[in-house]
Amino acid sequence: MKFNYQKLQQDGAARRGKIKTAHGEIDTPAFMPVGTAATVKGMLPEQVAETGAQILLGNTYHLMLRPTAERVASLGGLHKFMNWNKPILTDSGGFQVMSLSKLRKITEEGVTFQSHIDGSRHSLTPERSIEIQHLLDADITMSFDECTPFPATEAVAADSMHLSMRWAKRSRDAFKRRDGYGIFGIVQGSIYPELRKESAEALKKIGFDGYAIGGLAVGEGQELMFQTLETTVPNLPEDAPRYLMGVGKPPDLVGAVLRGVDMFDCVLPTRSGRTAQAFTRRGTINMMNARHKDDLRPIDPDCSCYACQNYSRAYINHLLKCQEMLGPMLITRHNLHYYQELMAGLRGAIETGTLNAFASKFHEQYAGGDIDELLTVGG
Amino acid sequence: MKFNYQKLQQDGAARRGKIKTAHGEIDTPAFMPVGTAATVKGMLPEQVAETGAQILLGNTYHLMLRPTAERVASLGGLHKFMNWNKPILTDSGGFQVMSLSKLRKITEEGVTFQSHIDGSRHSLTPERSIEIQHLLDADITMSFDECTPFPATEAVAADSMHLSMRWAKRSRDAFKRRDGYGIFGIVQGSIYPELRKESAEALKKIGFDGYAIGGLAVGEGQELMFQTLETTVPNLPEDAPRYLMGVGKPPDLVGAVLRGVDMFDCVLPTRSGRTAQAFTRRGTINMMNARHKDDLRPIDPDCSCYACQNYSRAYINHLLKCQEMLGPMLITRHNLHYYQELMAGLRGAIETGTLNAFASKFHEQYAGGDIDELLTVGG
Repeated sequence: MKFNYQKLQQDGAARRGKIKTAHGEIDTPAFMPVGTAATVKGMLPEQVAETGAQILLGNTYHLMLRPTAERVASLGGLHKFMNWNKPILTDSGGFQVMSLSKLRKITEEGVTFQSHIDGSRHSLTPERSIEIQHLLDADITMSFDECTPFPATEAVAADSMHLSMRWAKRSRDAFKRRDGYGIFGIVQGSIYPELRKESAEALKKIGFDGYAIGGLAVGEGQELMFQTLETTVPNLPEDAPRYLMGVGKPPDLVGAVLRGVDMFDCVLPTRSGRTAQAFTRRGTINMMNARHKDDLRPIDPDCSCYACQNYSRAYINHLLKCQEMLGPMLITRHNLHYYQELMAGLRGAIETGTLNAFASKFHEQYAGGDIDELLTVGG
Repeated sequence: MKFNYQKLQQDGAARRGKIKTAHGEIDTPAFMPVGTAATVKGMLPEQVAETGAQILLGNTYHLMLRPTAERVASLGGLHKFMNWNKPILTDSGGFQVMSLSKLRKITEEGVTFQSHIDGSRHSLTPERSIEIQHLLDADITMSFDECTPFPATEAVAADSMHLSMRWAKRSRDAFKRRDGYGIFGIVQGSIYPELRKESAEALKKIGFDGYAIGGLAVGEGQELMFQTLETTVPNLPEDAPRYLMGVGKPPDLVGAVLRGVDMFDCVLPTRSGRTAQAFTRRGTINMMNARHKDDLRPIDPDCSCYACQNYSRAYINHLLKCQEMLGPMLITRHNLHYYQELMAGLRGAIETGTLNAFASKFHEQYAGGDIDELLTVGG
């Protein structure tokens, strides 16, 4: 079975599609929960699947350090290791080397760095990153790239993008073709439309199974992010999935789908689950707030997730106050459910040609900040 | 429906029985997982039930401080609060006041103390302890007693036991009878047979629905504990359950069942789950040990629990090294399964009159210490 993207419907720039991989199909637009160290923190894999997730993201940087790619391979690959039999996408390690490691040194060849865990020295090159992702048995491998700092002058952004394009070619060459497995290129170029266009053209010339948009959600703000999508997406092939890396908040997802993006990943629903922030269609709620301590309502009365069907805000607030594991477990489960339900809503709206109405209704309901006050008054 | 204990079979001193409560039946001998702050740490309630647990223990001391008994009551009781619809036993708070709180002062009236959480001042009397347990809606309420220090001279132990007996009478008087709810008295008297006998007689005269044996597993060692059981249990009524508080390790449970005990509680399987210690029928395993890092076997190849059916030692070791929540979650689940399976084995052996053979086989297999070496050599 070939790795394959099929566009099923279109509504404006937005696409309803399906990706076929060695470990199953992914309905797009899709949100990928992050399973950094071979676990979505606090969740059992079947609970992740129950929320509707069809693909997870694994982090090459973390897994190469612990338990190491060779160990995962000798144990049968990442799917078996973590008991997740659906598709997995791994990032290239480039982003986390920049954000987590110490004493980084970048050359044409690649990056050398010190582990943030024990200070041990490591290196990543395009060839080694692709090899690691192969050892992990990722259904979708990402090209190794340099994460351009933000802000960057056009000259700096150009140099960085050009390096990433040379690395993209080396990544593509190092990737071993197998049925059901694919490799994505990553468009760079910061917020400069001409650089983004040049990057997209360079990647298309190399030829990839999918195209990611990198270097966004790094502090540029939603407006610049959306502008960059508008100038970048039209330069990407129609017959391949488009993946906006590291995004994002619910309004970011809605806006990016409207602009033709098919895939997302973000730590927000899981990390928020561990910092007491719950997502609802009306905005976020700080579950640590004392106002919940006598509240018998669930996190979101309109939510059908396991946490909302079985537990009160009062109970979750109590768990958080006592630093009980079950608090983050329940909020994470709720948040992932919310994200997957939002994606299902977007897919359904594209199928019926009603995406604009869906987006309008979303923006009407969704408050930017915390909605504690509002929801409590609303009863 | 009356709170009720029925003895179904007997094998030597050991009893196979059934307790009926407002929230369901409990097959005895039974092990009660500890849900200190209204949660069995790291477990969903249905996962606890799946291990075979039919009753949980809740801690009055913790719950009176957070979220408070009045709040639990106003939220519908502990069962609803924590989403556990089976029976709950609450302790009286006496033991934890002694082990956790600060600036304790004991008088005839009761105990005043400072919270270990925020230093706030509280008091517990027999009447208040019973009221709290009523507010929590415990199916089984425990009498308020003083936990006699160990070691104690016979004179100190006698004074302490006499105080506990006066408090037992006040507890019994304060308990509000309701269908399906019961109250247990607690035998004290340290390791002194005559004091234990006197205490048992005093409690029988007051009249309780069950009889606990308190003040053991406090450092006296297994031999003295078993001796104390042998002189205490024969003085307890045949038609009421007997509960050995805070016990214990698997060999303690087997030995106590042989000596006529029906109920147990202990933090060992759950706390061990958070300190990387896994229980197997051959002994305990330290899952943090580096020897597991390439081991594809489950914790216990003979175990049918969720963790052993789906995850390797290598994966669990990786999770622990990364301090991922899923590590303690999986080991806790395995340990609770092991404890419940042991209890089911004991019940089955009593039913078939083969308890001595069961106990012999248990002791043949179960090593006192860590069995890493042994299991690894055994393949």
